[in-house]
Amino acid sequence: MARELTVAEALESRRTTPRFDPDRPIDPALLVRILEPATRSPSERNLQPWRFLVVRDRANRERLNRCAQGLSRFAEAPVVVIVLAYLHPQRTHLQPIVDEMVDRGILNANEARAFAGRTRSRIDRRADPESWAVRAAMTSAMALVLAAESLGVQSALVDPERLDPDRLRREFGVPDDHALGCLIALGYAVDRRPPPFPGRLPIDAVCFGEHFGRPFDANPDAEERSP
Amino acid sequence: MARELTVAEALESRRTTPRFDPDRPIDPALLVRILEPATRSPSERNLQPWRFLVVRDRANRERLNRCAQGLSRFAEAPVVVIVLAYLHPQRTHLQPIVDEMVDRGILNANEARAFAGRTRSRIDRRADPESWAVRAAMTSAMALVLAAESLGVQSALVDPERLDPDRLRREFGVPDDHALGCLIALGYAVDRRPPPFPGRLPIDAVCFGEHFGRPFDANPDAEERSP
Repeated sequence: MARELTVAEALESRRTTPRFDPDRPIDPALLVRILEPATRSPSERNLQPWRFLVVRDRANRERLNRCAQGLSRFAEAPVVVIVLAYLHPQRTHLQPIVDEMVDRGILNANEARAFAGRTRSRIDRRADPESWAVRAAMTSAMALVLAAESLGVQSALVDPERLDPDRLRREFGVPDDHALGCLIALGYAVDRRPPPFPGRLPIDAVCFGEHFGRPFDANPDAEERSP
Repeated sequence: MARELTVAEALESRRTTPRFDPDRPIDPALLVRILEPATRSPSERNLQPWRFLVVRDRANRERLNRCAQGLSRFAEAPVVVIVLAYLHPQRTHLQPIVDEMVDRGILNANEARAFAGRTRSRIDRRADPESWAVRAAMTSAMALVLAAESLGVQSALVDPERLDPDRLRREFGVPDDHALGCLIALGYAVDRRPPPFPGRLPIDAVCFGEHFGRPFDANPDAEERSP
């Protein structure tokens, strides 16, 4: 296969794929090389509050389609990943993480207990566990999309507002302590659309400098800035 | 400088940097090469509901520090990007996008009006504009972190739960139609921690196959799957 793309190349070439080739599966080893790096995203206290529900079975992908009015691509894409945001990762993710830190000699047993206690109490105090978890899960979703693109696999990231969330939860057994981050269809595009993409906003439409509404200037005059 | 990292390499080497070298600024041209690809993230109807408030001025970074109890890194990192989620991008982002599609001959004037109308009415009907915008903004935040890492710039992505949001809004003029996605400190780490990172959950702790709670197997036996 072609060489892996850099981050900038993957961001430049990525498009939301409208139609996938249903007859081109993703090699299982390649799928692991897409999923695995996506678990390396940043999260507070390393609690990794994302979970990937990987749907490959055709009947299940058709059920997904029925949860998404007017979006046929889930049946055509050979793999669909439902990215879930785990609201309470401290309940099950924390202990194995702490155990590994002890095994490696990073913490002793007392330090591990104190670390686990501090982490649990901070995370238990979050004002909004759902949006906290969703924010982190979306970083892992983007990592997954870019890892795929870098390896020559195309994607379509679909917002859960396009879906019937209750139906999806029922059909795939998603419990209430997991929020929906997004769905990512993966596979090979029927047609790769030619770059450049129309309608990308220029950097100065998106960036501000120092204060909301003030233009961003990459090379600000030193005198304009406060001392 | 060293060659740019691939996506997998950037995900593998990235760490949340605890301390930045305050005496090593980021070259302005390099900063643009970090910000620009981050605007190439996926969003529904390409509405790009993210905005980056770039803070470099020392006094402003110290003000940021005062919004974040116990986190000194914003004063040390030469650049802090406040990633904002724009709740109503259809109000200002849609028209320039449609105009460009007309200029390029992708849509004629009638089609452009119809496209803009359909987009506006779909986006106006979102059940939860804030979480919709935050989900998209977090994909651009992760793109920014990975673009930086790929170019040899370290980062720390900080969740807004660590901040006093009202104070930050007041100090930096962030209006109510923008939600806080996260803050990203950028710069050069004082010490690069050695890989591997402790406590990374293995793929089977994070992935399910076909149904919530069911183990993910990269090479499922065909007979176990429904027809």
